[in-house]
Amino acid sequence: MPEFLSLSLPEPGLDRWLQSLPADRRPAVEHVPTEGALGRVLANDVQAPHPLPPFARSTVDGYAVRAADTFGASPSLPAYLHVIGEVRMGEEPALRIEVGQAALIHTGGTVPPGSDAVVMLEDTQTMSEGEVEVLRPCGVGENILQQGEDVQENEIVITAGCRLRPQEIGGLMALGITQVPVAARPRVGILSSGDEIVPPDQELGPAQVRDVNSYSLGALVAQLGGEPILRGIISDNFEALAAAARISHEEDDLVVITAGSSVSARDITSEVIASLGEPGILVHGLAIKPGKPTILAVADAKPVVGLPGNPVSALVAGRLVLTPTMRYLLGVSQEDWQPQIKARLSTNVASETGRQDYQPVRLQRREGQLLAEPVYGRSNLIFTLVRADGLILIPPEATGLPAGQEVDVFLF
Amino acid sequence: MPEFLSLSLPEPGLDRWLQSLPADRRPAVEHVPTEGALGRVLANDVQAPHPLPPFARSTVDGYAVRAADTFGASPSLPAYLHVIGEVRMGEEPALRIEVGQAALIHTGGTVPPGSDAVVMLEDTQTMSEGEVEVLRPCGVGENILQQGEDVQENEIVITAGCRLRPQEIGGLMALGITQVPVAARPRVGILSSGDEIVPPDQELGPAQVRDVNSYSLGALVAQLGGEPILRGIISDNFEALAAAARISHEEDDLVVITAGSSVSARDITSEVIASLGEPGILVHGLAIKPGKPTILAVADAKPVVGLPGNPVSALVAGRLVLTPTMRYLLGVSQEDWQPQIKARLSTNVASETGRQDYQPVRLQRREGQLLAEPVYGRSNLIFTLVRADGLILIPPEATGLPAGQEVDVFLF
Repeated sequence: MPEFLSLSLPEPGLDRWLQSLPADRRPAVEHVPTEGALGRVLANDVQAPHPLPPFARSTVDGYAVRAADTFGASPSLPAYLHVIGEVRMGEEPALRIEVGQAALIHTGGTVPPGSDAVVMLEDTQTMSEGEVEVLRPCGVGENILQQGEDVQENEIVITAGCRLRPQEIGGLMALGITQVPVAARPRVGILSSGDEIVPPDQELGPAQVRDVNSYSLGALVAQLGGEPILRGIISDNFEALAAAARISHEEDDLVVITAGSSVSARDITSEVIASLGEPGILVHGLAIKPGKPTILAVADAKPVVGLPGNPVSALVAGRLVLTPTMRYLLGVSQEDWQPQIKARLSTNVASETGRQDYQPVRLQRREGQLLAEPVYGRSNLIFTLVRADGLILIPPEATGLPAGQEVDVFLF
Repeated sequence: MPEFLSLSLPEPGLDRWLQSLPADRRPAVEHVPTEGALGRVLANDVQAPHPLPPFARSTVDGYAVRAADTFGASPSLPAYLHVIGEVRMGEEPALRIEVGQAALIHTGGTVPPGSDAVVMLEDTQTMSEGEVEVLRPCGVGENILQQGEDVQENEIVITAGCRLRPQEIGGLMALGITQVPVAARPRVGILSSGDEIVPPDQELGPAQVRDVNSYSLGALVAQLGGEPILRGIISDNFEALAAAARISHEEDDLVVITAGSSVSARDITSEVIASLGEPGILVHGLAIKPGKPTILAVADAKPVVGLPGNPVSALVAGRLVLTPTMRYLLGVSQEDWQPQIKARLSTNVASETGRQDYQPVRLQRREGQLLAEPVYGRSNLIFTLVRADGLILIPPEATGLPAGQEVDVFLF
């Protein structure tokens, strides 16, 4: 297996569809307080209004000096300097260091005018009031953080499309930027179709099951930075599904329909998707398992996705398709690195060639080894995924993987 | 390096402190709608109120039959069955399959009484109205999802301490559990000390810098599932800091103080932490870089953490210390797997033995290889972390790592 396998091997259909989405789309922008912007995607480049640090600062506790005054200093022949005062934290230094002078300074303090180096306290000795002995020479700039060493004035410090992490939040605050323009959370309409499906708060009739996909896909959308818009449970007929899909297509940035389970219900779903706009369905079926009956369409420049109705297929294929789709809608510019856990297969895993198999696995430590144990279950069984920690990918050319094989586990 | 290196090698001080936190602490519980519970930590075990699926369901489109009626069937000698009707989705089957009979059924449909198998449509042929030819034999239970095959009635399906993922949200909804008990978000009081520090919305005076740590640590806390309570910027004197710390200690579940940068400010912070309660400071200094001056304390059964004032040190050490602390406060029961990215060092990295060095790196693809390029910068420079994708860990026994070495990158 390639060393840096991503969660999805390139899937020709998915890639083709992603390429066909309008390249010039710009997400809607909203301004939010930086304090609460964790995980949001920056909509515009941010420029530094001033340098950081804003002034030269000491990186140690010690004495601000003129470096030249310490040349040749040693424990046996110290440089004697006259201490003219103390640089107080947060206050502009009122003093100026002249030849033969020094001032006490604390870590983070403003380097006073006239001085060009800071001697560490450990390299000094105080013998008499108002005088300090410097025991070693100090180079120009030593123990000083220069103005602009972190960030220059007007430098672009964070580029559009960056997902904000704790360090970006902190960095923006350091620059006094307390509001940031971010991509609005894309609205993702989710339609669940099926005559047997009822809402979760309803008692089950004898042939009914509750809606799973609206909520698992809704949580997935939220995880990926979108706003799920639950469009409800629609019965398996063209008119009802088409009416609901049209509203979602009009109001949302992405339409996701989970098809009813039967072939005829799937046919209705694909007819509805085809009816939403041009060019219509671009991909009908992906070479993946689970998730083969996935439909990828573009209707009047908006992406539309049809996912299988089985909860496991819907969630596994949904993650695969929606991860890059949400990146597109949010305008994410950097690569989303896919971290993995390396583990060894506890048993052989069978697979068919010609398709990418996503096998749920549970991680277990046994005798100092990390094992990936396949969790089997048909794709109707949502708790199969509850029992799993992640997925392994069996590439299309493989007929399976042997016990003991090292695999990359992609956590959910 | 060991194969499954976690983000932190065991750090004796950190481990000792974690062990000393009261083992019987139970997080406060709140009930939230399951729909919005993504990422929350389940507070109690969840039992299935009914089996899943709730009834035997067909996994294919086809005919519900009695398996015995298909024994020996083949394309040359089909079994002829009388079609008595169709099982409609979502409706209790009104029909019962007797010997020699079949009923049309859709994927997900309720298997009608009397039948014990479903023949796939592909294995049948319809020659005349009301009659179907079965072209191959069908085993008992074939193409049927049995009642309870996913989950048995009263089975514990999700255990307390589980972080809810999209599949758990979907699984709970399948069981009609629309509200769940979760651990309340732990309140984490964050105090920023330093006479030179001003709030982010303030214009900078000549020797002032803005507060970074309250916000980067606040975002980290939110990322880890807690509620940051910003206790403000406190000046570097014992009385002021002690007064603010006492309020946080009383009202919050965890107190985090970032010390002023100078030695005297750090001394004040440690005196304040020691004054909060018994047993007081357990660990003064960790064998890590950055983050060495970290203080770990327990005051009257509550954890208290003192972090260095430098923004990089505060965030790197903060992640290391707060990750397990938040797990403790939330009552997380499963292992949090630490996924990584494997990359090769672009240059040599120096390090000192005897401590764990966390080196920020940027990931870059070059000629099909993934390279980890060290991002250097002093620990006062928050944008060092903005320019980095993750950290690599240089273990205490190493004096550095050579260019080309494969390393594990832990993403932020």
